Amino acid sequence: MTESDFLALLRPLATHPAARGLMDDAAVLGDLVFTHDVLVEAVHFLPDDPPQDVAWKLLAVNLSDLAAKGAAPVGVLLGYPLSDDDWDRAFVTGLGEALTHFDVPLLGGDTVRGPRVLSLTAIGRSAIAPSRSGARAGDALYVTGVIGLAGLGLDALRRPGGGRGRLLDERISVSSGPGLRRDDAVSAYRRPVPRLAEGQALAPIVHAMMDVSDGLLIDAERMAAASNLALEIDLDAVPHVGEIMAAVTAGDDYELLFAAAPDVRLPVPATRIGTFSDGVGLTLRNASGPVALPQRLGYTHG
Amino acid sequence: MTESDFLALLRPLATHPAARGLMDDAAVLGDLVFTHDVLVEAVHFLPDDPPQDVAWKLLAVNLSDLAAKGAAPVGVLLGYPLSDDDWDRAFVTGLGEALTHFDVPLLGGDTVRGPRVLSLTAIGRSAIAPSRSGARAGDALYVTGVIGLAGLGLDALRRPGGGRGRLLDERISVSSGPGLRRDDAVSAYRRPVPRLAEGQALAPIVHAMMDVSDGLLIDAERMAAASNLALEIDLDAVPHVGEIMAAVTAGDDYELLFAAAPDVRLPVPATRIGTFSDGVGLTLRNASGPVALPQRLGYTHG
Repeated sequence: MTESDFLALLRPLATHPAARGLMDDAAVLGDLVFTHDVLVEAVHFLPDDPPQDVAWKLLAVNLSDLAAKGAAPVGVLLGYPLSDDDWDRAFVTGLGEALTHFDVPLLGGDTVRGPRVLSLTAIGRSAIAPSRSGARAGDALYVTGVIGLAGLGLDALRRPGGGRGRLLDERISVSSGPGLRRDDAVSAYRRPVPRLAEGQALAPIVHAMMDVSDGLLIDAERMAAASNLALEIDLDAVPHVGEIMAAVTAGDDYELLFAAAPDVRLPVPATRIGTFSDGVGLTLRNASGPVALPQRLGYTHG
Repeated sequence: MTESDFLALLRPLATHPAARGLMDDAAVLGDLVFTHDVLVEAVHFLPDDPPQDVAWKLLAVNLSDLAAKGAAPVGVLLGYPLSDDDWDRAFVTGLGEALTHFDVPLLGGDTVRGPRVLSLTAIGRSAIAPSRSGARAGDALYVTGVIGLAGLGLDALRRPGGGRGRLLDERISVSSGPGLRRDDAVSAYRRPVPRLAEGQALAPIVHAMMDVSDGLLIDAERMAAASNLALEIDLDAVPHVGEIMAAVTAGDDYELLFAAAPDVRLPVPATRIGTFSDGVGLTLRNASGPVALPQRLGYTHG
């Protein structure tokens, strides 16, 4: 079954308000925020990704969920399958770097033997934890940073020869800055940087917030649906690298997507890319007029 | 590498007091208790175990860690790999039963595609969370319930023909009660019942507490080592089913093991099975005198 079918089965078990109907990035219980993300080898990371980077990513994707709820990290628990000694050692090195970088303590977890399925629970605190469902008609949709770089990184790593040739030759053209190199794209894929400070600064002024993990379009559509609103995105406005439709469906960006009043003063840099209105559904446009939705809005599990 | 080698690598990353040096069943942050346990198919459960029971066990083993810290459950997060539709549906049914049984809400989690590695984080609250390391010289070691039934259940399930013949013929002799049937042993293995109420009642009067998950001897030795004490266990005193040495090394009991003053009035039924003293190491005895430690004290990962 699909993830969404499974969530429909689980929802009756998740009636506690802290569960937010299993529709949010995280559970919110008082001022505590909890998230639990799993990375599967060959699904969420590549078998030859350096273990240090896998550790970084495992922490970063969870911290990104905390960031989306405006939370400061309190600690993490790790579920780790022992496998190869060198891999395990390198993983611990990378985990140490990442924990130090984000100033988060390791609190506990579990060690097992089994396939490389890594789990992490992050605990945070947030005075105000914006949901996905609070957008209001007339709100603008904003996104932090630039979309699509991690997607180019993954694309480069997957291509025969690791795509090194093409990207080094062509350079990546960036719509909002100077040219970027292959290494930057690969690094964006392997070592995403959760927007923790931005999330905490934005939480008091946004009406809804989430992170962009599965793709800008699919995640934006989820926010609109959770808020019972229609949403139009202006593709020309989206800060991106590479081909626009690839960028907005690629995922792994870990930028923050949020709804706020169109005249609010933003405490951190972000770009207005769309508008919420009464109605349902996601529509796209650019300077030439309406743009058809792509078949696939982003990454889904099945 | 072994689990203990891996923990030695991780320990420098876990300097926060809530981590308790990665030596405890759970992390304890103020009055919050966090545990994260992973079950791997063919390692922690059998491929033909009913998915309903796997769901129960996943919840129960985590709640047992909360019980060992005297905590009342607050909620859980689930990490779940989608696989086969029937399996997934049956798992959700079992999870619902178990959550209802233990009155714990599902708060969130993550759904992925991948091998059957199931993770769960349980969050609890405890005014006093006893550690493993607080036993004092002169304390008695106590255990709740009966040891070895789950081990007999696993043994029965693993034997050709599921062991149905032998156990139905022989019945299991129980040292502290009437004969038990195969179904009770299998149920103890597949549907352990965490000692939540007992843990909460015991927390104020114990000096150290943990659950018996890997085996009575290995877990008792861990408590003694964490407390920097020697421990002698009287095998004749251990309430058990089946062969004594098999029972005390089998694991999966999820009973509570605790150190308390020998003259304390216990709020729940438990049996005194040993004594802590100054020194190091675990020793065994029975009515005939000293008993050699078995080669394997319990279950370890590698």
